[in-house]
Amino acid sequence: MKDKLGIFKAVRIKEGERQDIEEKVAQEAILRIFINEHEIAALSCTPSDQTYLAVGFLISEGFLKSSAEIKNVHSSEGEVTVRTKSPYEVPEELGRKGVLTSGCGKGKTFGSWEDVDPLEDTLVNLDLNFSSDEILKIMSQFQQRSKLFMETAGVHSAALAKGNGIVLFNEDIGRHNAVDKVLGESFLKGINLKDKFLVTSGRTSSDIVSKLWNCGLSMVVSRAAPTSLAVKMAQKLGITVVGFVRGKRMNVYSFPVRIK
Amino acid sequence: MKDKLGIFKAVRIKEGERQDIEEKVAQEAILRIFINEHEIAALSCTPSDQTYLAVGFLISEGFLKSSAEIKNVHSSEGEVTVRTKSPYEVPEELGRKGVLTSGCGKGKTFGSWEDVDPLEDTLVNLDLNFSSDEILKIMSQFQQRSKLFMETAGVHSAALAKGNGIVLFNEDIGRHNAVDKVLGESFLKGINLKDKFLVTSGRTSSDIVSKLWNCGLSMVVSRAAPTSLAVKMAQKLGITVVGFVRGKRMNVYSFPVRIK
Repeated sequence: MKDKLGIFKAVRIKEGERQDIEEKVAQEAILRIFINEHEIAALSCTPSDQTYLAVGFLISEGFLKSSAEIKNVHSSEGEVTVRTKSPYEVPEELGRKGVLTSGCGKGKTFGSWEDVDPLEDTLVNLDLNFSSDEILKIMSQFQQRSKLFMETAGVHSAALAKGNGIVLFNEDIGRHNAVDKVLGESFLKGINLKDKFLVTSGRTSSDIVSKLWNCGLSMVVSRAAPTSLAVKMAQKLGITVVGFVRGKRMNVYSFPVRIK
Repeated sequence: MKDKLGIFKAVRIKEGERQDIEEKVAQEAILRIFINEHEIAALSCTPSDQTYLAVGFLISEGFLKSSAEIKNVHSSEGEVTVRTKSPYEVPEELGRKGVLTSGCGKGKTFGSWEDVDPLEDTLVNLDLNFSSDEILKIMSQFQQRSKLFMETAGVHSAALAKGNGIVLFNEDIGRHNAVDKVLGESFLKGINLKDKFLVTSGRTSSDIVSKLWNCGLSMVVSRAAPTSLAVKMAQKLGITVVGFVRGKRMNVYSFPVRIK
């Protein structure tokens, strides 16, 4: 945990009284991600598990199709380079010059999912299902594990889970990064995603659904809300979006057939 | 508020009981931002005040130095084009080919702020100060105005404030976007930023401090936590970072001299 939190001097003001304190603050660093000689992205992130973050980012954002394309991964402080087995060219729609993104959104062209024919192309693993009790239990475990979040109140968590519990768990100051760390770890360890679902502490926006789709996941569960575009995409792509898992209740916004 | 929220059918599961409900969901849309013929960014955002968002983004991210460079702004659904008085070239370090960003971070080169000489270059408006009571009062107003947030629990808010109250307020699914909407509105309306401060519902990360610096703001106030890089930047740039404004207390992480 040492590298994820730093101690900073601060002044606490409480009812007008000042006090010098030392506060735990979430670490933030810049990670540059390369495929061979191409710089693909520079992410602001929690400086831990940067190999998982880089691999998860590259696959979930569509720069790589799967970990089978990867020859090796070289990691040094603040930089990860993924070398591919075959020569690599940055896909034009992903590497458009001058297109940055901000906020919690990605500058993605959404033509791809709008063109999906639900009967032909959609990811539909309808055999996958979980009981609402399993989901409540996993959300409770998930929150107990979010220690960094609890200590600094500035960090997101993500997990990969199946009915009987959490398989992988990670944290980051960025909600996309936490998800990418979990996905990257599962790719590098060869963990099957088809029978599992994603848990996230953050809101489910279109880019999270896009990551699920790129990685072959069928369900996402969150304590927070989804956005309209996320729900529309999920309805078309056959993905189950569960939101507001709090106390003993939850809302299912798409494909509730997967919740027993 | 109509365009910010949509109604979606959902299934609520509570203690194993299912109920068909209609839920308010935050709208999400993609906004493409152009300077003249250059596409600069594609943001995932709440579809409102897109002109403010585009202008705030372009100035706070350093693509434009000030609103004085703008000849006119053309807005159509999902697109804003800012035309400049002089010919415009995308700065090389901002428009690096193939560099996308994700998470809640920006792929910015931070060399610029690290090179600042605090005595020579820093933005230091130390005459600016506010009492802790003023800040608590403004945070209380801020939370009362965050209605969209309260209704959907998926949205961030930002405001521009001075000692006696909130001057501008806006909301977005992205925490950067909410800030950019407030900044853009202030630029287009010619509101002076030097005697005001920023209020945000989200965490204060390095990119938020970078936006303050690009816009000449000296202070940011948040209910949430800052990150380590944000505090380090703020210490160097002469910016006051106030976090965890909750109940009757707050933490001041840098330049507490501005809080009386």
